[in-house]
Amino acid sequence: MTTTKDLATRSIKNPLLRPEDVTPSRPDMMVECLLNPGVFRFEGAVWILVRVAERPKQEEGKISFPVLVDGKMDVLTFDLDDPLLDVSDPREVKYDGEQYLSTLSHLRLFKSADGVHFEDAQLPLHIGIGELENFGVEDCRVATMADGDFLLTYTAASASGYGVGLKRTRDWQTFEHLGLILPPANKDCAIFEEQVKGQYVCLNRPSGIIVGGHYIWLSFSNDLEYWGRHTCIAKTRKGMWDSSRVGAGAAPIKTERGWLVIYHGADENSRYCLGALLLDLEDPTQVIARSEAPLMEPLADYECNGFFGEVVFTNGHIVDGDEVTIYYGASDSVICSATLSIKEVLSTL
Amino acid sequence: MTTTKDLATRSIKNPLLRPEDVTPSRPDMMVECLLNPGVFRFEGAVWILVRVAERPKQEEGKISFPVLVDGKMDVLTFDLDDPLLDVSDPREVKYDGEQYLSTLSHLRLFKSADGVHFEDAQLPLHIGIGELENFGVEDCRVATMADGDFLLTYTAASASGYGVGLKRTRDWQTFEHLGLILPPANKDCAIFEEQVKGQYVCLNRPSGIIVGGHYIWLSFSNDLEYWGRHTCIAKTRKGMWDSSRVGAGAAPIKTERGWLVIYHGADENSRYCLGALLLDLEDPTQVIARSEAPLMEPLADYECNGFFGEVVFTNGHIVDGDEVTIYYGASDSVICSATLSIKEVLSTL
Repeated sequence: MTTTKDLATRSIKNPLLRPEDVTPSRPDMMVECLLNPGVFRFEGAVWILVRVAERPKQEEGKISFPVLVDGKMDVLTFDLDDPLLDVSDPREVKYDGEQYLSTLSHLRLFKSADGVHFEDAQLPLHIGIGELENFGVEDCRVATMADGDFLLTYTAASASGYGVGLKRTRDWQTFEHLGLILPPANKDCAIFEEQVKGQYVCLNRPSGIIVGGHYIWLSFSNDLEYWGRHTCIAKTRKGMWDSSRVGAGAAPIKTERGWLVIYHGADENSRYCLGALLLDLEDPTQVIARSEAPLMEPLADYECNGFFGEVVFTNGHIVDGDEVTIYYGASDSVICSATLSIKEVLSTL
Repeated sequence: MTTTKDLATRSIKNPLLRPEDVTPSRPDMMVECLLNPGVFRFEGAVWILVRVAERPKQEEGKISFPVLVDGKMDVLTFDLDDPLLDVSDPREVKYDGEQYLSTLSHLRLFKSADGVHFEDAQLPLHIGIGELENFGVEDCRVATMADGDFLLTYTAASASGYGVGLKRTRDWQTFEHLGLILPPANKDCAIFEEQVKGQYVCLNRPSGIIVGGHYIWLSFSNDLEYWGRHTCIAKTRKGMWDSSRVGAGAAPIKTERGWLVIYHGADENSRYCLGALLLDLEDPTQVIARSEAPLMEPLADYECNGFFGEVVFTNGHIVDGDEVTIYYGASDSVICSATLSIKEVLSTL
């Protein structure tokens, strides 16, 4: 590990949560992966909103995966030797021109007194609702607003594509659904925790087709429900660790030098690392600085090997003075944490 | 032609405008194609806002195409035998992982007293402005609002992807730019010419990646600048003429039975036909009916052969009682017109 510039101090308790620690949502399902939690403080505890990816126990020679039909889980099964089937990417199932996800994800709350030992909060699961979430809900960012609102932006996956859904809550008991705020193909949406010049701002990751790519964009809103003034702020960089796709992590951290955005970048081999962007405080469409080297890369065994190896992916953190604790999905399998010094990160920018 | 159900009566003057009828924007450019005009009535005339696609005169053994750099046209050239070059689709240029468009489009106004004979209105060209339009502007819909505003929604193409830009004018001399209203990958945006339940409504065509496809969506806005409540209303249909991609034409036509949307559909061979959707007047997210057979398909020689053959594509029309005159791009080369009877179209739905 000595040759890298990895700045993250991993928790010695990693992984904090593994699939076998979690009860499936139904007895006939298995928890296949835990991924990419949103993170917040509430009532004196640290909470993580984990993406729990499930599928049925697999029969030999077949692949089975669930989808939601009218809000109920239904299972599709194909023979693995069917020539119309393509499962070359473990995250996807392609069959005769139709595309599905290999697992169905819901979001589940876990809480912790120390930020390390988490237990299932036994609160209702967030299951996909309606036709625009029939392939599940994923990778939720939680923005903690000064007025006590929590804003949940998550990937709403369906046969219509994946877009960004938004829910608002104050008490984690009742939720207001503000609809799909960004149409396909869009994900990795993080709302700033305060307004900039009287407007809400979010980072998001639309995907280009023919032209463009998987780039980080910024959008604005007066009311959270309707968004506009979309603009691209960070592209992939050829030949670098973030050459293939980039996407924002959790809400930016306000520093004296600017908005600090922790983002993920993947290369052509789908190796996911973390880096940072620094955005102008007054005009966050202006990028002041960007990491040359990753802040964090898959190094630990649990980051290199799993459902989809060579992945560190974060979309949730808590800040305590100079220390930011990121919670992250490792190898699309387990939940981990690590700390970074904000000062040290800024010194690289 | 007797075996098809094609309902369109083509103008005997087709094509109405060909590339050789149009002066290039610069002496060193050639007009390669005329495409997909927006259409409106203004000051007693019929106007079309044509997409004019240009590129430099091509040298043997090379491919050259323009892009905008800081608002100025710049020309890129590659050797045709360069193994890193891919020009298998005449509309695109791929080189070593980078993607470009083979032509640069601007929008230009032509006017006509009779709707058949058009002349260049000699008004300023609409050239791409800024980084989000550096690959040009394309396929503009013009919504004519009751208050005298014209709303222009067009494809803003750039190295960041293609999204939907919006401009507003009353006099066709001065234009207010409302920004990129829908981020990539999105195009084919048509704003309804009146509000529904107090909100602006638009059809648009985001593209899915991994899941989803090239489907027609509906979005809502209170102010035209910020959009939300995105929902998918029409998907492609396997084995049919619209199996590969669908997208809205111009603003829907209000009929007693519902909002009549003329849309394009393409199959796996990129053969573009036109069909219709009927949407509920009160709740346009509800699709009442949809064409089984195309209303119009590429049949005439000028529709079958050209820059990109087998294409009829409309995003502009005028309505006169029961008669709708669509203006359309044929084979991505020339501008044509045809009439449809609204009653006859409705009888197929």
